Amino acid sequence: MPMPDEHIHPTATGLAKKVVNAHQDPQDLVFWSGWFCPFNQRIWIALEERKIPYQYHEVNPYKKEEAFLKLNPLGLVPTLEIKTPDGSKSLYESDVLAEFLEDLYPPSKEHPSIFPSDPYEKSWVRLNIQHVTKKIIPNYFKLQQAQTESDQDAARKELISALRTYAKRVEGPYFAGEQWTAVDGALAPFVRRLYILEKHRNFDEKEVGEGWWEYRERLMARDSLKNTSSEDQYYEEILGRYLKNEAQSEVAKATRAGQSLP
Amino acid sequence: MPMPDEHIHPTATGLAKKVVNAHQDPQDLVFWSGWFCPFNQRIWIALEERKIPYQYHEVNPYKKEEAFLKLNPLGLVPTLEIKTPDGSKSLYESDVLAEFLEDLYPPSKEHPSIFPSDPYEKSWVRLNIQHVTKKIIPNYFKLQQAQTESDQDAARKELISALRTYAKRVEGPYFAGEQWTAVDGALAPFVRRLYILEKHRNFDEKEVGEGWWEYRERLMARDSLKNTSSEDQYYEEILGRYLKNEAQSEVAKATRAGQSLP
Repeated sequence: MPMPDEHIHPTATGLAKKVVNAHQDPQDLVFWSGWFCPFNQRIWIALEERKIPYQYHEVNPYKKEEAFLKLNPLGLVPTLEIKTPDGSKSLYESDVLAEFLEDLYPPSKEHPSIFPSDPYEKSWVRLNIQHVTKKIIPNYFKLQQAQTESDQDAARKELISALRTYAKRVEGPYFAGEQWTAVDGALAPFVRRLYILEKHRNFDEKEVGEGWWEYRERLMARDSLKNTSSEDQYYEEILGRYLKNEAQSEVAKATRAGQSLP
Repeated sequence: MPMPDEHIHPTATGLAKKVVNAHQDPQDLVFWSGWFCPFNQRIWIALEERKIPYQYHEVNPYKKEEAFLKLNPLGLVPTLEIKTPDGSKSLYESDVLAEFLEDLYPPSKEHPSIFPSDPYEKSWVRLNIQHVTKKIIPNYFKLQQAQTESDQDAARKELISALRTYAKRVEGPYFAGEQWTAVDGALAPFVRRLYILEKHRNFDEKEVGEGWWEYRERLMARDSLKNTSSEDQYYEEILGRYLKNEAQSEVAKATRAGQSLP
C-alpha cells in the first residue's frame, strides 16, 4: 500500500504557483523544492528576498526520485543543485543554504542581504535561528501531532513560552529592526501555518503577548512569504494528517518518536 | 543535597592548565568556559587555532553564578562575553560562536581562518558540522548513558554508521583537505573522549573503517586539541557519571529523556 503522504497535491497553488511558473527556465542554481514544506519555504523566501536567479523543481519527498536522492541522500527538501562545467554539486539543510546564498551572492543593491553586517548583530540573528529551530519548531510539531489533552496542554504551554522569549527580542518592525533577516524567514513559514493550530488545537497566538501579534502581522504581510505560499485548503489537506498523527514525513516520524528533528 | 555534578574538579589540568594560565589578563573578549565540556572545547580550539586574544574564565555550569546567567540565560558553556564601552554583550551556541569569531577577526595571516574561502566548500563544512551535531553526537551520548545491552548495541551501531558516513567524506589530511576547519574542531573534542567508550562500552573505533583511524590520529595530534585537553583521570571522573546514567548536565538529562540535545 502506498504511504498516504504520496498523494499530496502535486504542485503549488495560489500566488506560489505564479512564482513557480516564473522560474522554469534553466539556471545554474536549481531549487529542489516541496511547495508545502515550511523548512523548504525558508529558502524559497531567501531566494525571493535576495532576488537570486533560480530554477524551480518540484519534488515529492515521499516518492523520492533517484536523481533527487543522488543530490541529497537524506531525501529532504530544500536541496540546492549547483550546476558547474564539471557536473552538479548539491547542498541541503535550510540554515546552511541561507548562509550559502549569502556567500554565493555577496550583499549588493541587486541582491540585498538577509543578515546584519555587524558581526555581533549577525550572530544574534543566527543564535535566534537556533532558538526557533530548537525551542519553537519542535513544540509546534508536538502540539500538532499530540492526541491527548494533557500532551496538547504541555506542548501548547511550551510553544507559547518559546514564542514569548522570541517576541521579547524583536526590535521591530522585524526581528533585527528595519532589515528583514534570515530569522524572520526561518519563522515566517511556521507562522503562516499557525492558523491550523488555532482551528484544531485551541491555540491562541494572542496569549504570547510582548508585541507578538503586531510582529506576526508584519511577517504575514511580507511579499516573500505571501508569494511563496499556497492556498489554505491544500495546507489543510496535508496538515490534517499531522493532526491525526498519521503523517509519514521524517519530521512527523521524529516527533512521534520523541526524537530530535532531522 | 547538592547535585553530584557540583563537585567536579574545579580547574583544567595538564596542558590545558598552561593555556588557562596564559589567558588570565583582562581582554575585551571573555571566554566563559567549562574545562571538561566537549562543546566548550570546540570554541577553545577555535580561539587557539585563530590566535584570537581572549581572557579565560572558568565556570561550574552546575553551580551557576548570577553573572554567568545574566550573560547566558540558558546557563551553558561556551559563552563569550564581548566588552564594549557601553557595557557587556554576550553570545552562545558553539556553532554560532565559531562563525562569530570568523566575522569578528576576518581571516588574515595573524588570524588564520577555520572555514574554506570557496562558498561551496564553506557550506559543505557547515553541512558536516550539522552531521556531527545531529547524527554523531546524540549517539555518542546515547551509547555513554545506555544501561542495557540492547540499548548499547543500538547506539553503538548508529554511532559507527554516522562516523563511517563522515569518514568517507574526509579529504585528508583533515576533513576539507590541508586546512584545519571548524568541522574538525567540532568533532575533535568527542574523539578525544572516545577512549571512555572503548574502555566501558565495547566500542571499537577501528570498526568505522574508511580511513577513520588515520584521520582520528591526525585530530589527536593537533596542538589545539592537545593544548585544550585536561588529564584523562579528570575526564573519567566526570564521564563516569554519564556511564552510570547519573550525570545532571542538560545534555545528560536530554539524552536520558530521549529528547534533542540543548
